[in-house]
Amino acid sequence: MKTRIYLDYAAATPVDAQVLEAMQPYFAQRFYNPSATYDAARAVKKDLEAARAKIAQTLGARPGEIVFTAGGTEANNLAIRGVLEKFPDGNLVVSAIEHESVLAPAKLYENKLVPVNEQGIVDVQTLVRLVDDKTVLVSVMYANNEVGTVQPIRDIAQAIAEIRRNRQAKGNDRPLYFHTDAAQAANYLDLHVARLGVDMMTLNGGKIYGPKASGVLYVDSHVQLNPQILGGGQERGMRSGTENVAAAVGFGVALELAQNLRHEEVARLSTLQRSFFDTLKGSLPEAVVNGSRTHRLPNNMHITIPGQDNERLLIQLDEAGIECAAGSACSASDVEPSHVLKAMGIGDVAAQASLRLTIGRGTDEAAVRAAVKQLAHFVESNR
Amino acid sequence: MKTRIYLDYAAATPVDAQVLEAMQPYFAQRFYNPSATYDAARAVKKDLEAARAKIAQTLGARPGEIVFTAGGTEANNLAIRGVLEKFPDGNLVVSAIEHESVLAPAKLYENKLVPVNEQGIVDVQTLVRLVDDKTVLVSVMYANNEVGTVQPIRDIAQAIAEIRRNRQAKGNDRPLYFHTDAAQAANYLDLHVARLGVDMMTLNGGKIYGPKASGVLYVDSHVQLNPQILGGGQERGMRSGTENVAAAVGFGVALELAQNLRHEEVARLSTLQRSFFDTLKGSLPEAVVNGSRTHRLPNNMHITIPGQDNERLLIQLDEAGIECAAGSACSASDVEPSHVLKAMGIGDVAAQASLRLTIGRGTDEAAVRAAVKQLAHFVESNR
Repeated sequence: MKTRIYLDYAAATPVDAQVLEAMQPYFAQRFYNPSATYDAARAVKKDLEAARAKIAQTLGARPGEIVFTAGGTEANNLAIRGVLEKFPDGNLVVSAIEHESVLAPAKLYENKLVPVNEQGIVDVQTLVRLVDDKTVLVSVMYANNEVGTVQPIRDIAQAIAEIRRNRQAKGNDRPLYFHTDAAQAANYLDLHVARLGVDMMTLNGGKIYGPKASGVLYVDSHVQLNPQILGGGQERGMRSGTENVAAAVGFGVALELAQNLRHEEVARLSTLQRSFFDTLKGSLPEAVVNGSRTHRLPNNMHITIPGQDNERLLIQLDEAGIECAAGSACSASDVEPSHVLKAMGIGDVAAQASLRLTIGRGTDEAAVRAAVKQLAHFVESNR
Repeated sequence: MKTRIYLDYAAATPVDAQVLEAMQPYFAQRFYNPSATYDAARAVKKDLEAARAKIAQTLGARPGEIVFTAGGTEANNLAIRGVLEKFPDGNLVVSAIEHESVLAPAKLYENKLVPVNEQGIVDVQTLVRLVDDKTVLVSVMYANNEVGTVQPIRDIAQAIAEIRRNRQAKGNDRPLYFHTDAAQAANYLDLHVARLGVDMMTLNGGKIYGPKASGVLYVDSHVQLNPQILGGGQERGMRSGTENVAAAVGFGVALELAQNLRHEEVARLSTLQRSFFDTLKGSLPEAVVNGSRTHRLPNNMHITIPGQDNERLLIQLDEAGIECAAGSACSASDVEPSHVLKAMGIGDVAAQASLRLTIGRGTDEAAVRAAVKQLAHFVESNR
């Protein structure tokens, strides 16, 4: 069996050894229901709350503003459906390049899509124009999962704050919340909610070397939203179901690690990313990088190689031990061309000649070089 | 530190060693996103589908009828909200002793509660009278989580089948589905969906020595319901979000084990249960067993000790190393008296003198004897 070179970190990250170690006690030993009253259960509850407090601190939030969910998709659904159910005559504005877990719930309500430019970046002024007096929610992802473009979250937050002030002056007391899906951003960007100016933020354990099906929705204490999963009233009534302490503890360790490693990994991966693009330019000068080069996650390489078929390339690369993607892996068996590329003005033919390679903690220079080499080899042989 | 005697298996079960072992590879090694296209990811997807097929076989269902969820609460919400959103002018009939994760979503819609008798058993004829021409869903739990009473699921299914035939004869083509929450039943009772006659069934990994936040909703292929978590379209569109393969595989092993051990454990625990009740009668003749003795899970001992305060007893028992409950642990910090006991006609004073002890795989005769001994001791000293 060949050495595998994993270049799909945007689709899934392996659970970090420290994270897994922190989770282990909660499966078979400290398995108690955190709502039970005996000492052993209360100790587990305490660990759950310690994880919550640690996460809150990382985000500059209060522990009561952290809602544990079973993943990023559930967190996005809670943000969108929760607010729009609470304010049923309101509408929402979301970017055209959101993840399906934002777009699909958004479509249940009156919604407007903010276009992006060719670089895959949301234009703040266009967004502002789409917000009307009935808009209760704006949702723009922090960094895109396909092309890795980083959105101007702070600028959007400031523009929204101004709209709020204008509303107040007009006596419109409808809330206007700003949600960001930070699933892909959490390894590399600042997550401080006050600095960002967001009211809600989605985090996904499965993208930060934490357990899958672990997630967090940060919900600022002033935000009103309807819970989506009802029952025992856990998570201060915002999300019922026996708490998954192993996942919460694992998430806490994963987020701490990710943020501690952030600057180091940004520097390291930026170098690898530059190396990839430079080597690619030498080997395959016709290749096009999709999305902004400057407002971009350091781990994302999304390229179009004109004349190539990405399905064929993926199979060839996989056989050579290189694991990457045509786009998002989030849409199970999706045959439609990517809505993200479409929004960026990339046609179907180019989309079908596109690959997404995303690097991470296990990637080194040799892997990047091998990937470009194999890619160039197969492109050559397919001609 | 004292030896701990855990008697709260209805609240949480430790993950079985075989289950945990089966889960381990999917955290750090086989962590791939099952929707990715390379070989390694497809192998993981295959494992997910093998788990699904195994579960389906146990239930006498088809693999496509198994929807993985992040626990029993989510599965119950999906069944209730999914059907009532699909048929918004319909109503539903649920028993008065359902878990909060059925009752709370039921309250969002036009609903009728079926009372239970003093034994904690639903009366089928009363249920039938509450079903009207607009009823689209009946939900009655298989076994109650507080008092362990087993409901006449087969009889209810037959009655519902007759209502369906009458509807057809009248030209009423509205569906009438039957859902059962089998979270507490799965260790001890037959789960074959055709023998039971149910259209939907909830299972919870956290109650069958599987991982927490793992669950299944069996959905018969003819049932129409709206998904509740939207996005990438995983689980055939019924539940979006990256699949939690570790949890699904763990759930599969846990369910298999539970059903393999079922007859043995029913026999063993029935003996322990009888022993408990007999010894209790000798030591505390005033103690009352709540709920039917004959239609009852073999692991549940729910008792009232007149004149006692259950909060005080719980603290005393905990100090003596005995971990049990006043009622369900599912309602986080619930101060209201149990709706289950209320429905059985048990007053607040008696409810506050009640304890729930639930036994499981780790319980032996010595534990049961120790529990009764300590209980009698504290009751004596509190007098």
